[in-house]
Amino acid sequence: MSLAAVVGLSFALASHSSTSPSSCSGSDRWVILAHGGAGAWQGPEHLLARRRQVLREAVAQGARLLADGTGALDVIETVIVRLEDAPELNAGRGGIPNREGFVELDAAIMRGHDLAAGAAAGLRTIKNPIRLARAIMEQSPHVFMVDRGAVAFALEKGIEQVNPSWFLVPRPPPPASEGKKSGTVGVTVLDRCGEIAAGTSTGGYDTKIPGRVGDVPVIGAGTYANAKTAAISATGWGEYFIRYTAAHDVSARMAYGGASLDEAMKAVLRILREPKDARGGMIGVTADGKWAAHFTSMGMLRGVATFEAPTPRVGIFADLD
Amino acid sequence: MSLAAVVGLSFALASHSSTSPSSCSGSDRWVILAHGGAGAWQGPEHLLARRRQVLREAVAQGARLLADGTGALDVIETVIVRLEDAPELNAGRGGIPNREGFVELDAAIMRGHDLAAGAAAGLRTIKNPIRLARAIMEQSPHVFMVDRGAVAFALEKGIEQVNPSWFLVPRPPPPASEGKKSGTVGVTVLDRCGEIAAGTSTGGYDTKIPGRVGDVPVIGAGTYANAKTAAISATGWGEYFIRYTAAHDVSARMAYGGASLDEAMKAVLRILREPKDARGGMIGVTADGKWAAHFTSMGMLRGVATFEAPTPRVGIFADLD
Repeated sequence: MSLAAVVGLSFALASHSSTSPSSCSGSDRWVILAHGGAGAWQGPEHLLARRRQVLREAVAQGARLLADGTGALDVIETVIVRLEDAPELNAGRGGIPNREGFVELDAAIMRGHDLAAGAAAGLRTIKNPIRLARAIMEQSPHVFMVDRGAVAFALEKGIEQVNPSWFLVPRPPPPASEGKKSGTVGVTVLDRCGEIAAGTSTGGYDTKIPGRVGDVPVIGAGTYANAKTAAISATGWGEYFIRYTAAHDVSARMAYGGASLDEAMKAVLRILREPKDARGGMIGVTADGKWAAHFTSMGMLRGVATFEAPTPRVGIFADLD
Repeated sequence: MSLAAVVGLSFALASHSSTSPSSCSGSDRWVILAHGGAGAWQGPEHLLARRRQVLREAVAQGARLLADGTGALDVIETVIVRLEDAPELNAGRGGIPNREGFVELDAAIMRGHDLAAGAAAGLRTIKNPIRLARAIMEQSPHVFMVDRGAVAFALEKGIEQVNPSWFLVPRPPPPASEGKKSGTVGVTVLDRCGEIAAGTSTGGYDTKIPGRVGDVPVIGAGTYANAKTAAISATGWGEYFIRYTAAHDVSARMAYGGASLDEAMKAVLRILREPKDARGGMIGVTADGKWAAHFTSMGMLRGVATFEAPTPRVGIFADLD
């Protein structure tokens, strides 16, 4: 094997491995979008302001990492762990208890260039579900694991577990959506290697039956990334996002129908409303740096930062600040 | 409410409910396809003949039901229950034990006209997973349930449970695929109401880690139905069928790219082979009676019957008999 071949291999590993230090500096361009869930977002102004601030700080951290050359998956994991740990949002700590009063969490992560993906669902004791999703992607032959088996795998891989009570925090009412308490967090990223990726994490909603899995860990529904089209994270009435394979449908309308990310995302969100007025939102980014964030719910907490405008802009309703 | 309106409502319920007698006789046309898994299908000739016979009898039963006007979902449930109960195939009884020696089952069902869907995964005690998938679709507000919560829901709905040892039967080696013991069963149907639907059920493969979920219950990956395009059931290396959102990708190539079912299915199966030579197969049917069955594995046990050729034709390798 020639030296050039060895160097090429090392570079490939460094670009796409979790353990190697990130070294994305091939381009100046980077983009990060994050959301904190679609819904009505009613409540006292100081609580909305607090949630905006949590999301703003998370996007700012992601932006710094991207500017420094950190790879897409590392940025997604770091930012989502932060959002999971924030009790103000419905993912990880602060996740909304189900119908029987305990928290069940789902998460997924996917990268665009090779469609590598990891997802986990029905988690009752995993502190940071996004870490388990990534471990499934990188340290197992599988894409998707659930409940007891997923937890046994997490234990084997040293992923932190907590008592189920850890998730239950005194918290103000979460954003109402369709009469339910719900929410989700998600991040989509373009890094300076030109890689796009998406991640999503959720506690679901308050009247869900134990064992219910929503769109978040269903690859193609709530989470999807394809370098040829876009990296997408969705939030909303999960059952309909599954039936419409919403995130992959955005990608397919781009790939086969010639739609832009913006057009495709709007079309899918519009069609989701047709049968039962299923509402929600999505964020997405393409490998050439285009991004979109749309919603049909009253509001969607979201933020964006780019290499051209690195100071995070955040909004819940129509406008970003 | 006028009498006409009442009659209209009754008809609508009868067409789409599991409890009402089926009454599909609007058209003479019906189609049923079934598969018993993609793989190498090596083994003694008498075992292959036995598996062909199991599938042939199942397709024949489905054909009789369809000719009599039974609705698509009832036909799918009946035929898949029969295939699940057959110890010769890898679904339900005879499901392949995972890495730790116990059987974990997944299933999904979906109908085309309204994208209603139900799916269940990580089941260790549900005798007929397809029945639970249908109950989730019709008797819960959810689409997808897993493991402990799914089983509690099944108990509530009176769905039969068995001791995990029930699934373990003395059986000949299942079809080998990618060096793994694997297999899946699936059915796609066009009924005389013009409704299409798809169902799939599986035990996964023998080296899977407990908790692993494959493509079968991931709506859009292994199971998908849309009246505007096709009803599809897939079998193969599930991790890749998830990453490629394979079944929905067939539908999307038809909807946005103008491909026929045949062209779209072949294209997706070809693309799945590109990164890691992921192989498998699919069956599908459209609302206007076109059907396709393709595979990139050495063989795929499959059968078809239609209103024009009601005697089942069955095959494993290139040709149907």
